[in-house]
Amino acid sequence: MHSDMGPDQQKNILSYQEGDARLVERLDEWLAKKLLRAIGTPPVTIKLWNNREVGDPEIRPVASIKINNRTSLVTLLANPVFYFGEHFSTGNVDIEGDLPGFLDTVYRHLPQKRGSPLSAVVDRIRASNSLTGARKNIHHHYDIGNEFYEKWLDLPAMQYTCAYFPDPAMSLEEAQNAKMHHICRKLSLRPGQKVVEAGCGWGGLARFMAREYGVNVRAYNISHEQIRYAKQKAQEERLTDRVEFIEDDYRNIQGDYDVFVSVGMLEHIGIDNYRLLGAVINNVLREDGKGLIHTIGRNQPDKLNEWIETRIFPGARPPSLSQMMTVFEPYSFSVLDVENLRLHYARTLGHWLTRYEQSMHLFRDKYDDTFIRGWRLYLAGSQAAFTAGTMQLFQVLFTRPRNNKQPWSRSYLYNDRAN
Amino acid sequence: MHSDMGPDQQKNILSYQEGDARLVERLDEWLAKKLLRAIGTPPVTIKLWNNREVGDPEIRPVASIKINNRTSLVTLLANPVFYFGEHFSTGNVDIEGDLPGFLDTVYRHLPQKRGSPLSAVVDRIRASNSLTGARKNIHHHYDIGNEFYEKWLDLPAMQYTCAYFPDPAMSLEEAQNAKMHHICRKLSLRPGQKVVEAGCGWGGLARFMAREYGVNVRAYNISHEQIRYAKQKAQEERLTDRVEFIEDDYRNIQGDYDVFVSVGMLEHIGIDNYRLLGAVINNVLREDGKGLIHTIGRNQPDKLNEWIETRIFPGARPPSLSQMMTVFEPYSFSVLDVENLRLHYARTLGHWLTRYEQSMHLFRDKYDDTFIRGWRLYLAGSQAAFTAGTMQLFQVLFTRPRNNKQPWSRSYLYNDRAN
Repeated sequence: MHSDMGPDQQKNILSYQEGDARLVERLDEWLAKKLLRAIGTPPVTIKLWNNREVGDPEIRPVASIKINNRTSLVTLLANPVFYFGEHFSTGNVDIEGDLPGFLDTVYRHLPQKRGSPLSAVVDRIRASNSLTGARKNIHHHYDIGNEFYEKWLDLPAMQYTCAYFPDPAMSLEEAQNAKMHHICRKLSLRPGQKVVEAGCGWGGLARFMAREYGVNVRAYNISHEQIRYAKQKAQEERLTDRVEFIEDDYRNIQGDYDVFVSVGMLEHIGIDNYRLLGAVINNVLREDGKGLIHTIGRNQPDKLNEWIETRIFPGARPPSLSQMMTVFEPYSFSVLDVENLRLHYARTLGHWLTRYEQSMHLFRDKYDDTFIRGWRLYLAGSQAAFTAGTMQLFQVLFTRPRNNKQPWSRSYLYNDRAN
Repeated sequence: MHSDMGPDQQKNILSYQEGDARLVERLDEWLAKKLLRAIGTPPVTIKLWNNREVGDPEIRPVASIKINNRTSLVTLLANPVFYFGEHFSTGNVDIEGDLPGFLDTVYRHLPQKRGSPLSAVVDRIRASNSLTGARKNIHHHYDIGNEFYEKWLDLPAMQYTCAYFPDPAMSLEEAQNAKMHHICRKLSLRPGQKVVEAGCGWGGLARFMAREYGVNVRAYNISHEQIRYAKQKAQEERLTDRVEFIEDDYRNIQGDYDVFVSVGMLEHIGIDNYRLLGAVINNVLREDGKGLIHTIGRNQPDKLNEWIETRIFPGARPPSLSQMMTVFEPYSFSVLDVENLRLHYARTLGHWLTRYEQSMHLFRDKYDDTFIRGWRLYLAGSQAAFTAGTMQLFQVLFTRPRNNKQPWSRSYLYNDRAN
């Protein structure tokens, strides 16, 4: 930290202890400038607790980072990504201006760097995705309470995964419906087929497949809250003869199926488990079976934003396509189609964020402010990450190597209804 | 070879030298049965030079392998894949019945095994794809003579790569045209854009893009014969102001371009060179640029059929998708779309084989029988490999990570004309 300071500045550091207010102010501003440089000098300003503003006066800022005390400033400098999340959640840091716009700008300027020493430590202490660890990690995120998610996800399907906007003017509900149709068409679902779903969330897709495509679905999930909700809805919708929800891990899937589908699970199971997932699919998929995996991904192997991984999604690790192939290649599955829906996820998150912000006042009796602000940041930050291109959304369609029952073009995906 | 023989059979071996005709016949039949087992016991028979037929009498054979001498039988047993190619080419082995049907059946039964000791030796002596090695390998295949390829490829574009049959009843010319449109649409070509093509063959796609989409193309190829042909056609079609053909290696591509495209080159450059190819693309592609790579591939990392690699395509190595990602991931290119056109290549090869067989009599004054029979086997064998699912055809569309100029659905690929 001292290496690029001249003798005068080093003298200032010494004076720091002496309480010379003017020198302390200069040091704070110097730290703030250093922070701006550390995050790639985006067009933003930093407003300190004493309302002094730091930033390039030549550039019109898109927003200001309000930092409410010196500890927050110093820890931000040590690890901007992680501590921005921490301090924004607690209210020690705030954004004056448009939060998603600010985050998008910062994402575009952030230097592409690899793990810091701190992240290495965090890595070591993180629990692995063992069966019990997986249950704990998922509980952390998905068992917060269904009422929380109901306030900002699509209803009644409750899909906490990327929607599909063939027309960007679609509502969230329309786009989530279009997503389910898109997946079912890719899989060429036919009435009477047996489908297994790994990681079924609140069961929206499982019930949709049974209702709209007449298939029989067995859907697995380790979240107790979600399975309870999914079963209840299936009863209400009189689908229990065609949809079975099982509170169990994907590793325990058995039986034989025409179709395997998994939407939004792969990014949570850990890359070390991909080969095992492939073995599970290989065990249960029929000779002319098809499968689809829908997952958050990366352009290259990399870690998730450290704060999101620690506070929001413990154990999550979105794969690059080469990593994802570990599911398929050992078993010679044939990849038929990969579609990247990155900008659809940015739009999905925009809808979620709007609804979330409209409901924030409702959460106050059940959750504390740190939780509520943290979730707002997470949704806005994820939107920015998909907009800036640091995160991807892959849908991968695959089959057995010798399955020649394939359409001659993908036009069947685009023939009827708008998609 | 002796391990599963009883004492009687071992005695027969001893008798072999003594010229006991009956015992020799029994040994030959025993070797033939062993050969059938080695190739996975497909429903075929083996007919020996003395017209004795070996095979399961319970099963209706799809074809017979006619083996014309004992040396061929023994070497086939040592390395069936390689020596089938060798002996079929020279006429020491023939197929009685439908050649593509026979090959398809055998492909489906062949045990999935890894390299033999022989293939390891072959690997060591094979030249690497250095700049001069690449030129030699390509010369081996593509400089045979344009007249040879004109007899069975589509005219006038002469595309020695997979066509696209959105309607399987299309003619070869229609399907090759549809392929070029499909690629141009995926790339969203607009008039005036600058396109670079790596490995342009006889220049059919380069001229098509310039003519039909109004772009400016610079196209690279190291085959002297092909470049000569491509330039001549560009002159005839008055396209020289918009298409430039350069006899040079992809590694020497320079400039800056809106679009990078490469059709049927990746499978020839060797997997060790993928990172370098990615660096070349990274150097020349503009910030909002797009690219497409069309290549033969595999479901998992594996070698090409040894005989094809030795005799037909020295240096060829079709990648699995995970291997292919080495082009993109180091530079954080964003993969937008992967389409597997495996069965389209089977159909393309079917067209080529039919035309080739109709023209075989024309080749006799210029090429010897081994060459002519070898090519027939190569086309039929490749058709069988794509039909049986041992080979894939990947089209991968990609862009820079921050390019948000993307259509909201792939329906634009399927809107107008039939595809």
